[in-house]
Order: sequence, then C-alpha cells, then structure tokens
Amino acid sequence: MEAFLTQVSRNCPFLRRTPVSALRQLSTMPAKRQDIPNPLGQPKTALVAAAQQCPVMSKAIAIKQAGGESGARNISTTPACPYAAAAAAPMPETAYVHPGVYLGHTQQHPAPPQPMAAPVPQHVPQPMPPRPMKEKVAPVQTASTPFDYESFYQHELEKKHKDKSYRYFNNINRLAQAFPTAHTGTGEHVTVWCSNDYLGMSKHPKVLESMKETLDKYGAGAGGTRNIAGNAQLHLSLERELAALHNKPAALVFSSCFVANDATISTLASKLPGCVIFSDSSNHASMIQGIRHSGAQKKIFRHNDVAHLEQLLQSVDINTPKLIAFESVYSMCGSIGPIKEIAALAKKYNAITFLDEVHAVGMYGRGAGGVAEYIEAMESMDIITGTLGKAFGVVGGYIAASTALVDMIRSYAPGFIFTTSLPPAVVGGALTSIRHLRTSQAERTGQQLNTRALKSRLSDLGIPVVPNPSHIVPVLIGDAETAKSVSDELLYKYKIYVQSINYPTVAKGEERLRITPTPGHSEEHMDYLVGALQTIWHERELKVESDWEREGGRAGVGKGCSVEQLVVERDLVVDEWQPERMVAAA
Amino acid sequence: MEAFLTQVSRNCPFLRRTPVSALRQLSTMPAKRQDIPNPLGQPKTALVAAAQQCPVMSKAIAIKQAGGESGARNISTTPACPYAAAAAAPMPETAYVHPGVYLGHTQQHPAPPQPMAAPVPQHVPQPMPPRPMKEKVAPVQTASTPFDYESFYQHELEKKHKDKSYRYFNNINRLAQAFPTAHTGTGEHVTVWCSNDYLGMSKHPKVLESMKETLDKYGAGAGGTRNIAGNAQLHLSLERELAALHNKPAALVFSSCFVANDATISTLASKLPGCVIFSDSSNHASMIQGIRHSGAQKKIFRHNDVAHLEQLLQSVDINTPKLIAFESVYSMCGSIGPIKEIAALAKKYNAITFLDEVHAVGMYGRGAGGVAEYIEAMESMDIITGTLGKAFGVVGGYIAASTALVDMIRSYAPGFIFTTSLPPAVVGGALTSIRHLRTSQAERTGQQLNTRALKSRLSDLGIPVVPNPSHIVPVLIGDAETAKSVSDELLYKYKIYVQSINYPTVAKGEERLRITPTPGHSEEHMDYLVGALQTIWHERELKVESDWEREGGRAGVGKGCSVEQLVVERDLVVDEWQPERMVAAA
Repeated sequence: MEAFLTQVSRNCPFLRRTPVSALRQLSTMPAKRQDIPNPLGQPKTALVAAAQQCPVMSKAIAIKQAGGESGARNISTTPACPYAAAAAAPMPETAYVHPGVYLGHTQQHPAPPQPMAAPVPQHVPQPMPPRPMKEKVAPVQTASTPFDYESFYQHELEKKHKDKSYRYFNNINRLAQAFPTAHTGTGEHVTVWCSNDYLGMSKHPKVLESMKETLDKYGAGAGGTRNIAGNAQLHLSLERELAALHNKPAALVFSSCFVANDATISTLASKLPGCVIFSDSSNHASMIQGIRHSGAQKKIFRHNDVAHLEQLLQSVDINTPKLIAFESVYSMCGSIGPIKEIAALAKKYNAITFLDEVHAVGMYGRGAGGVAEYIEAMESMDIITGTLGKAFGVVGGYIAASTALVDMIRSYAPGFIFTTSLPPAVVGGALTSIRHLRTSQAERTGQQLNTRALKSRLSDLGIPVVPNPSHIVPVLIGDAETAKSVSDELLYKYKIYVQSINYPTVAKGEERLRITPTPGHSEEHMDYLVGALQTIWHERELKVESDWEREGGRAGVGKGCSVEQLVVERDLVVDEWQPERMVAAA
Repeated sequence: MEAFLTQVSRNCPFLRRTPVSALRQLSTMPAKRQDIPNPLGQPKTALVAAAQQCPVMSKAIAIKQAGGESGARNISTTPACPYAAAAAAPMPETAYVHPGVYLGHTQQHPAPPQPMAAPVPQHVPQPMPPRPMKEKVAPVQTASTPFDYESFYQHELEKKHKDKSYRYFNNINRLAQAFPTAHTGTGEHVTVWCSNDYLGMSKHPKVLESMKETLDKYGAGAGGTRNIAGNAQLHLSLERELAALHNKPAALVFSSCFVANDATISTLASKLPGCVIFSDSSNHASMIQGIRHSGAQKKIFRHNDVAHLEQLLQSVDINTPKLIAFESVYSMCGSIGPIKEIAALAKKYNAITFLDEVHAVGMYGRGAGGVAEYIEAMESMDIITGTLGKAFGVVGGYIAASTALVDMIRSYAPGFIFTTSLPPAVVGGALTSIRHLRTSQAERTGQQLNTRALKSRLSDLGIPVVPNPSHIVPVLIGDAETAKSVSDELLYKYKIYVQSINYPTVAKGEERLRITPTPGHSEEHMDYLVGALQTIWHERELKVESDWEREGGRAGVGKGCSVEQLVVERDLVVDEWQPERMVAAA
C-alpha cells in the first residue's frame, strides 16, 4: 500500500504535500472524534478520518459502507482518488501484522538492478509536522469500571507516537548474490548502507556451503536444549574456537548476545554476595537488562570516563565483589572503551571486568579477536562477550572466560539452560566464518579502508560525522523527524537504505544516520551515497559541521577536533601488512 | 576420553567397579587435600587425586611431572594402566570447554549403523555412591582478604555436584538422513528417544530444501535488528502465518520462546498498573523468569487446580489488571492445562490469559494450532506463545495476540528490539514446516499412534509411566543417581539415548526418563527400547507400578488410575480421518 501511495501522491494535493512518514503515522494513529466531519461511523485510524474530510473520498467511503465488502472492492478497482482507494480498501496484508510495519508485496523474481543514476537535484517536500493532538490520558479505572486492556495497549502506543519513538520497520531483503543490494517489499532494488553484516560474511561462499552441508547432514534444528538431545560436536567445537579466539580457557554459546549478556550478568551479579556493578552510561540494553535483573546495586559511570569510574570504585569496600561492565566499540557513536585503563582499575580495586565486544569481534586484531586483541589487552579482561550475528554474519552470542566461571553460568543461568540450542547449520556456518576471519585480513582491511574513505569525504563536505576511531560512521542530524524524513528520502528517492537512529537509542537532539561501510561497497556505491547526502544537505539546508561548531558542538561534532584528525590519530584501522584497497574483495 | 575409559575399564579393579557417571564426576570435582597421599603437587581434580593412590599410576604421574610435557606424552602412548594414561594425558579437548561436557572426537565419516542387537541379559554394575566429601564452606571474606572470585565459582559448582543437579551434556549428533539415529562424540550410532523434534520435521526434505534455497538467495544472517536492516518479507510472512495458525490478528517472532515468554510477560506485567500474575506451579522457567523480571505481584496456583486459581482470583480486586499464565502441555509430566476452565475464570474475573503452547504447536488440532485449537478454545486465549524449535523442527519463538498487544510488545520489549533478528533461512524453514503441518495430518497421526503403543506396552510390563493424555512418555525412577545411571546404561550398553530428568527440573523423588516417540521410530526401534527397559528394570530390580501403588503412589503413578485408562479416556491423540499406522511416514 505504501509504495502505491508514494507512486500516486502527485495526483492529490493532500498527498503531494504530505511525506510518507506522516502518512504512516496517520495510518496507525487512532482517529480523534473532532476529526470526523460527518456521521460515517467511527473510523479506525486518523488516515481514514482525514480521508473523510476529502470531498471525493468521503463519498467513496459512504458508498463502501453502504455496499459492504463488495462495494469496497468496487471502489478499490475504480477509485475517484488513488488515496481514497488506498485508505478505503480492505488491507489483507495488514490484517495479520502489527501496524508499524512497512508492508509491501512479496516479489519472487525481483526486477534486475537498475543503474544507479546520479542524484537529480529536485525539490523534496519538507515533512509537515502532524496536527497537534489533544492529550489522551490513560484510561481511568474506578471501582465500577472493569480494566480495559486494549485501551491500555493503545494508550501505550500513543505515547510512542507522541515522543516520535514509534518504530516503523522497513522491508529489506538483502540479496546474497548482489551484496550490498537488497530488494524492498515492492521488489525495488536498494543499496544497504546500515547493516551490521559489516564484512559481508553472511554471503561468503564458504559460510553458505558449510551451512548447506550441515543442513544435509544434521538437519534444520537442534531438537532440544543443550542438556537434552541438543548438544552436538559442532556446539563443542564452536565453543572451543571462541575460547581460542579470545585466548580464554572456556566459552559458552547462547541464542543471542542479548541473552548472553542478560543471562551472564544477571546470574553472576545475583550470586556474588553483595556485588556492586559499575556500568558505562552508554552500555547496551542487554547489559542494562542483565544488571536490572540481577538485583545488584549499580553505579553508572560517565561514558568512557575512567576518573569517574575510579571515584565510584573508591566509594565501595575493597573486599566487596565488583563487576565493571563496558563495551569495546559503542554501536551508535563508534567510540572505543578504554580497556587498558579499566583493566588497571579493576586490578587495583579487585573488580572483575565484563567486556562486550559485540561490534568488534571479527573486525579488529590480527586474529579477529576484537579491540582487546588489537591493543593486546585480552588477558586482562575476565569475561568477553561477542556475537555470531554481525561481523561473523550468522546469529547467536557467547561469553568467553575462565573454566569455572563459564561452568557456573552453564549450570545456573535459566536463559542458557532452558532453551533450544542453536541449529547445527547456524553453528557450522559461524564456525566456518570465525575460522576464515581468524586468518584472513582482506575483509577487515577492505572495511577499514572504506570507512576511512567515507569519513574523509563526508568531512571534506562538512557533513557532520560524529568523530570516532572505529568502523561506525554516525552522521549527525539532531532532530527526530528530520532524521526519519532524510532516511525515507534516501530510501524512496535515491534507493539507499540507511536507517535513522532516534531517541531512546540516542539522546534527543543527537538523532543521526548510522552508516556502516563494508568491503563490498564499491567506489561507485560510495560516490552515489556521498552525492545523495550532499544534495540532501544542500536542499534541506541541514546543519554542517561549522554550524554545529558555532552552536558549541554536539555529540563530539564541532567541538574543536576534526573527524580527519581523529581518524588519523586514534584510528584502529588498516594494518600495514595489507595496504592495497580491497573494495571488491568480499 | 570417556569411551576410552569405558572400553578399558575391565583391566583395572578400580575402574571395573566404578560407573562412568562417577568417573565423570570425579574428573570435574576439585581434589581434597586429604586425598593426596604423597607430595606430587596439588592435583587439579579428584580423578587425578584418586590416580595418585594407585601404585602404578602414582609412579606414572611422578615420571610425567619430572619430565614435563614430553614425559606426559611418553606415558600416554605406553601406559602401564590405561586409566593412568587417560588421567595423566594432557586433555586438549577439554582445554577449551567447560568440564561438565561429555567429550568425544569428531568423526567426519561415522561408521555405518550397526544392527541393533537384542538386549543381552548381563550383569550391569550398580553405581557406587562417591565417597562422602567434607562440607566445603563458601570462602569467608574478612576485612583483610580480597574476594576470591574463582573460589566462589568453584564453590557454586560444588553445590551442584552435592545435590546431584550438576548437568553432564551428552554429545549427540542427530543424523538427518538416518532419523532417529545420531552419532556420539566417538562416532558410535545411537537411537534418539528424547528429542523435542517430535515429528522429525528437522529433516523433512521440504524444510531442508527451502532453507538451502533461502541461504543461496538471502545469505546466512539477517544482518541487523528488526528495526535496522533485519526485517525482511520472510519475517513478515512468518508472523502472518503464525497469526493465522492461532487465529489471532497479529504475531511477533523472537530469538526463542524462552525470550518470547520472558520478554512478553515482563514487559506486559510491568506496564499494566498494579498487575497481579496468577501462575501455574508447574510453569516453565521462561515464564517464571518473565514474572520475576516484571516486578509484578504473583500468586501461584497448584498445578491445573482451577478451584485454587479461583480462590486466588477472588482475593484480588475485580478491577485490578490480572494475567493468568499457564501451559497447554507440561513438558516433564505431559499433563494438559484446563484451557476452557481457565478461560471461563478469566472472563469472570476480567483477567487476560497467557497460554504457552510450546509443546503443542504442530502436534494437536487439525490445523496444527495446538491443544487450544483441538478443543476449540483458541478464541478465548488472549496471548498464545509457541516455538519454532520443537514440532516445527527449526528454532525461534513467538507470541500471537491482538494487534495492539503485539504492537506494544514490539515497541517496548528490549529482548525483542535490541537483538539480531532470526536468519532468513531459519525463518524460511520454519514457514515451510508450519505450512506443511497445517495441512498434513500424517506426522501427527504417526506420532500419536507410536505414543499410544509405547505407553500401552510399558504399562503391560508394569514399567511406571507418569499417566497423561499427551505425547510425552515420562518413566518414573524416583532417584537422581539411578535415573542418571539408567540413562548412561541405555546409552553405552544399548545405544539408546534417553536423557534422565533430575531435580530441579522435576521434584526430588520424581526423577524420570522422558521418552518422546516420533513418527520416525519403527516397530523394531520400539521393540528394542521396550526390551532394554524390561531388562534394566529386571536386573536392577527397579520399582514397577505395583510397587509405587503399594507406597501410596507418586507423580500420578500407582494412584488408582492406570495409564491405559487415561490414554483412552482423556487422550488427545489420533483423529479418525487418518487411522492407518504411519510409523515409517516421516
């Protein structure tokens, strides 16, 4: 329905001035009573309510309601207004899914990729803020009103709409044979610039071959928990490989690293008597959840601020068990945790360290062990956690630590014990991917060169990249609706997919596009992306780096250090042993 | 190492009298000081400590320690005693994995399956209880001793050893082309009788084909969360299919049903103001975790006791939000939740219902929708959760419910939002499996006929099956060590894999074997299993049903209702439209 709306929007003055994002929002917002101009019955959504204000559409709806189902079908095949048809037609696609999902029709044989045209400068409609809604209060419960569950759910959803944190999922089908191209729900081809398949390993022939072989040999599913029929040699081999990857005695695999972090922190910190957890303020939701579920006391230190961490450590008795939880690469800003400095503090104050290397494993270090390997600090970390679903290209998570710690988590964590183990093919694919990346530098080098090139080119244009030394390229926009609208424009007009990142994932005022170059992006892909961003920045008059600087800076942008300096001085990228550009390698 | 120990155990008087399970335990228990007879250094495990008491072995260890690594290698190739060699040899396989894992060597080309011999009556050594250990207390922390983390982990593990709840994982590699056969870590072929791949769908050619095709088309991993690059048409189609399966407006897929239950209950009950949760006392760990994490008040009703549930419901204000959480098939006893009765209570007291159909989806109902479909009660359940990893044969979990509820969970549950979405191939395989089982009755019928046959045959022999109307065949043993030992004997002597289920998964005194027939088990498989159990029950003089009856019954066994009666009267199995036996169908 959405692609249809986009296509026909030029024929209707309302639609021509209304961005897709606003239409999406209207289609999921319940209608307000004051928006209903005539007694056509209570419309379900604000989109239908708006349609009832249209002279063409209101009649169409009346006919539909008089004629029932068949009337609706007539309207949708011969619409007076395409918008009317779309709003009035029955929506079988949406009947079974949540309304926030961007829907399209499956196309089994997508059209061949269209050549990427250079961005044509043309007017792009600015998003119109939706009309202010009267505040809806939560359903009030009195002694005589039974609790209305459905209204409560609706109310919770309206809160999300109101603070612009409601998520619309894009329909993105990444094509293994045309990486980094995907087709959307309507079959259109787009270039993906925001996947966490950082190295393109999800389409590596060796990985796919090993998965298909494993499927043939061991079937689709593991068939049980690790304790009952679901523990195979592949699982043991994967854990041995992961332990070796981080130079630890043992490792343990979970359904995901969300589960690994949650289960490990909550189990460990709830067992250690009186444990106090020291948590970086930018830690991932999985760690925050694990900390909350542990019931342990927590102390949050300012992001990457070791002086603040030390101050907090000093406030706790030296003999109290302590856990310091932090990350090596922070996903949304690309900053790097001060691993060595935290290790020194942990030693000084007898704390154990929990390092999340989710965005770094496979990406850094000669043996793909992450930032801790790259800076030779693996030994100083007690627990390292990682994922099989980003650089390694499959799915699943793990911890690596001492034998006793791993065995304790294995023996006590419900999130590990009481769940079906990962399918043999997933385990086999991950094992192949890890083994490949432990010896091959080509993917990392290609990725890092592309990262450097993109940061440098955007910096030259003044497009504000949040400065960081890692492979993440966060482009600051600073407003939720604009970020969403720019993401929509990139997708629908330029066929470039970069998801916007809004609150609560990043702070309000720090909304951004999060770009992740891969070794599979060609120079042509990059030229086209940079051109599109340049045109959008120019047409929309978005803030460039000097604007942020004048305002005192935000999220590190315009705060006196240029991206280029940071890239050169603190860069983790490109070792000297593979200097050639590997753009087309992966 | 283990198979080696088993093989050579007849040459050593110590090993001949020591069951494999005891050796396993010794190999993971830390040595006690009093067990060290001479100053050969602190041995790491009780197994090595015991070896030091052996006149042959103690010298071998001394030589090894004098000669270092090369000495050890010499010993292990020319051992005076095979036990000595095994205990003294360096263990590269165990170096990277947790000690509780049963290890074997990968064999790429397992030997062809050996014909299943009829059970040979022979003496089976009874397990010797390990020597009583002096109680080890948790490391005491004083103001002057820094907290010793590693000792603490060891202490927690010892508690598991002590109460016999320490889990040893068997190495089971289920062969897709020889279902229900698996090879162990040593390459031996065994018949699996305890997998949750209830219908053998994990090796269904259509499922495997769709997964391989999806791998080729969309690659190995999803590459992101549902919000960022990881939301494809396949995910939307799967959710539509799952919603239709349960006749609900919407569905949402998670990494596993553990995550689905945990995330949904914790999110929902923490949001509903003042919510009180009513939870069946036999609920799965995932629900218990969700309840705990929600922070909501909980009231536990006795298993399947609707009178007790009503009593508890009456104690809470009618207008307070309430959630009743229960299961349709309880995994460890096979009992069935009183869905209609609970639905009536929910209506009466304005509560919402949360039904876990994990062990029932794909298994019951003409459309594979579970027990609620079979008894025509789907509409009365507010939230139904299920898995893609048991009858559907792949991996993953989901909820199906109203559009607003699903959208709220989608929008608020961290366990859904902040994790990599399921791989396209997993989603494609699950979709194929569900679509197949929604129309095909053959697998269900074959499974149910085999279940009925096995229950009936064991009942005829007096072997105590916990009575239930479902597809689970729990055989009561009533003692943790015996259950483990019988499971070991089945595996090592009869090449039958049935995991023992001990505390805390079942109550102490209700330890059991949990047998799960599939449509892929032939009559020969069943004859052999029944024969092996008969021999073991006879040789070990295990309690038969009449023994339990004399003692007043336990877990429903010997309590006045025979298994046969229950099977006939309350059976959920076998509709009349597919009466023929489908044993070899799947």
